[in-house]
Amino acid sequence: MNIPRTSLPRVVIIGGGFAGISLAKQLGKQEIQAVLIDKHNYHTFQPLLYQVSTGGLEPDSIAYPIRKIVKDYPNFSFRLTNVDAIDTENKCVHTDIGDLNYDQLIIATGSNTNFFGNSEIEKHSMAMKTIPQSLNLRSLILENFEQAILKSDLEERNALMNFIIVGAGPTGVELAGALAEIKKGILPKDYPDLDIRQMKINLIQSSSRILPAMSEIASEKAEDYLQGLGVDVWKNLRVTNYDGDLASTNGDVSFRAATLIWSAGVKGATIAGLDGEEFITKGNRIIVNEFNQVKGFDDIYALGDIAAMQSEAYPFGHPMMAQPAIQQGKHLGKNLARKLNGKEMKPFNYRDKGSMATVGRNKAVVDLPRFKFQGVFAWFVWMFVHLFFLIGFRNRMVVFINWVYNYIRFDREARLIIRPYKNTRKS
Amino acid sequence: MNIPRTSLPRVVIIGGGFAGISLAKQLGKQEIQAVLIDKHNYHTFQPLLYQVSTGGLEPDSIAYPIRKIVKDYPNFSFRLTNVDAIDTENKCVHTDIGDLNYDQLIIATGSNTNFFGNSEIEKHSMAMKTIPQSLNLRSLILENFEQAILKSDLEERNALMNFIIVGAGPTGVELAGALAEIKKGILPKDYPDLDIRQMKINLIQSSSRILPAMSEIASEKAEDYLQGLGVDVWKNLRVTNYDGDLASTNGDVSFRAATLIWSAGVKGATIAGLDGEEFITKGNRIIVNEFNQVKGFDDIYALGDIAAMQSEAYPFGHPMMAQPAIQQGKHLGKNLARKLNGKEMKPFNYRDKGSMATVGRNKAVVDLPRFKFQGVFAWFVWMFVHLFFLIGFRNRMVVFINWVYNYIRFDREARLIIRPYKNTRKS
Repeated sequence: MNIPRTSLPRVVIIGGGFAGISLAKQLGKQEIQAVLIDKHNYHTFQPLLYQVSTGGLEPDSIAYPIRKIVKDYPNFSFRLTNVDAIDTENKCVHTDIGDLNYDQLIIATGSNTNFFGNSEIEKHSMAMKTIPQSLNLRSLILENFEQAILKSDLEERNALMNFIIVGAGPTGVELAGALAEIKKGILPKDYPDLDIRQMKINLIQSSSRILPAMSEIASEKAEDYLQGLGVDVWKNLRVTNYDGDLASTNGDVSFRAATLIWSAGVKGATIAGLDGEEFITKGNRIIVNEFNQVKGFDDIYALGDIAAMQSEAYPFGHPMMAQPAIQQGKHLGKNLARKLNGKEMKPFNYRDKGSMATVGRNKAVVDLPRFKFQGVFAWFVWMFVHLFFLIGFRNRMVVFINWVYNYIRFDREARLIIRPYKNTRKS
Repeated sequence: MNIPRTSLPRVVIIGGGFAGISLAKQLGKQEIQAVLIDKHNYHTFQPLLYQVSTGGLEPDSIAYPIRKIVKDYPNFSFRLTNVDAIDTENKCVHTDIGDLNYDQLIIATGSNTNFFGNSEIEKHSMAMKTIPQSLNLRSLILENFEQAILKSDLEERNALMNFIIVGAGPTGVELAGALAEIKKGILPKDYPDLDIRQMKINLIQSSSRILPAMSEIASEKAEDYLQGLGVDVWKNLRVTNYDGDLASTNGDVSFRAATLIWSAGVKGATIAGLDGEEFITKGNRIIVNEFNQVKGFDDIYALGDIAAMQSEAYPFGHPMMAQPAIQQGKHLGKNLARKLNGKEMKPFNYRDKGSMATVGRNKAVVDLPRFKFQGVFAWFVWMFVHLFFLIGFRNRMVVFINWVYNYIRFDREARLIIRPYKNTRKS
């Protein structure tokens, strides 16, 4: 991998997501030799991927070059590669560009879409965890409208204009809301040949309320908002199969739809060498102690979505979201500094800052630890918080301008089929 | 194609480039039934593609949804499709989504990269006529740097950091300048492991000066600027072959390079049914009269790059650039209105507004009909003109902000490998 070993302890970080970048920022000035590895050369701001899928934002404004982050840290190197396996005995990471030895290893590989073993659904549905996936979805939505115009058969046309979203967590809810705004604001203008009433957005949730991780009032309000926007919300319903055309459920309904977006869950992105049963718990996550150390090692740590730090308050680990990842990254950075200076590490304490979801213009729900609110103010808070956590001044400016523009004009201009999805899928 | 015929005369426009859009804007309010066809759902602002390739702008800000343009014209329809052939006898366009009859047909298909029959060069080199091509080049440039770090063999590393640009028209010159700015501003910060001196930019021109279509003073100044930025300019040299590694020439030099960008020429994008020898002249262009009518037809027109309107001043037709396309589109729009109202059409007169090229920050050359200038002011004029001709307020804002940011920070933040090019090429 062409990284000569120095006399400094070598810290290898796998993954440049929220956890990895938060850790890197903390370790930036430390006396270590750090190597950050990722399979992309950019950090993705995942909470806004749904806006890329729906033409509200360009992909480049929610991505940030990892090299631009680590360039300020003289002891950091970055390598663009896939990790094949970890050899804990020889303290070595095997990658497709060679081996890399470590003194301290941090696993911040995040999570992948969880299809719960249903390969038929995996094959035919759209996921939304990466920028290429979001761009594929953007292309598909627009391609479906273009195709719908050409169909004289009503059933075929309806299927092309029917969007099924499985899973009503924040991603599913936000995507449903954005599609509803496309139906209202874009469809009648761009596609006067199509009957707006034929576009259906079905949001399907297996449990008894949407946004199940939020408060009941948030769930209720969000559902009200969605219904007001014309989204059909289905609760206590589970999609059991999807063949690219027909989505079957455990209830007595089924849906004909050309598009099914799967946002029903994620699972830890494990790595060979640390994926033995003794390491892994529910959701494919690696069990860690209160210092984020992997069971049985004092030199291997796991952070963020991939790490399950089980406690009384969080028996299955912290929620797989940005906040625990950011906080764990920062905390581990401080702990590693303590350790390098011969001091004791401190246990991690999660500070739940609350959670939020937006449904559409002027419509959001916010749960703070002390109080909960919904509506216009919640929507402003949602925007402010997302702008604040975006990396990079230019990205913030461009996102801000797009939001102002979209708000004033009821528009989403990035409705571009730059790489057709259907052609890609065929080949 | 699901477009019922109305009693109005049907005008079919093939191509949503500068010519097609300029015509559409002119015909927007006419009493016709117009159908605009393009293989993309967006208009591309081609003069700024090189900035997409070099990470200065996001692709979405130089593309504009065609449906958003024609939605204001009640008599316009848009169809996303490829044209297979034209049947002039039955006045019909064959496409991959069905046939379309026309009363008046306008061919505004533009041009493709001209490899002058060398399939080896075509296979291995990068073109830059479309947004996907520009994004492929962006990925490749960055992938090459990532790979160069890993090579201990000096020759291999040099080849990965050697960029050959063939053809020193505006595109080649602007790309060379942008790569030089990457070498100076990005490479040392992002890739401290690489020796900046190993990055070479070779600009190769077959004739005796660069920017041959511009004034001699512009050529000289541009060459000065490029040399100041560290670009190696080769004149009177022709690349005869390229196998993906070695570029041979008609001189006694050859180059080992992992990247060769071909900007040495374009040729008209002809259509079956109108590609007979009697219609076509030099550069694969369709011969048209002074009303843009194709020889032998009074209901078929060609516009822009694809059209060769031969005159004393322009014996081979107008230059294949945005300005003639825009002016011809506008003029034909007026002529068609005259024709529909039973009036005489007027011959087209090209108003040469001059030409310009930018080399880098504060460095551009401008040839106006009355005077020529270079340097900082030329650079501002270049930027102003390009912002002015961009379609869409949001695009202008986003491009402007990126330019201000890039100028102040000596930066180009869109250095993202969103879809790896090398993996795509392999598969």
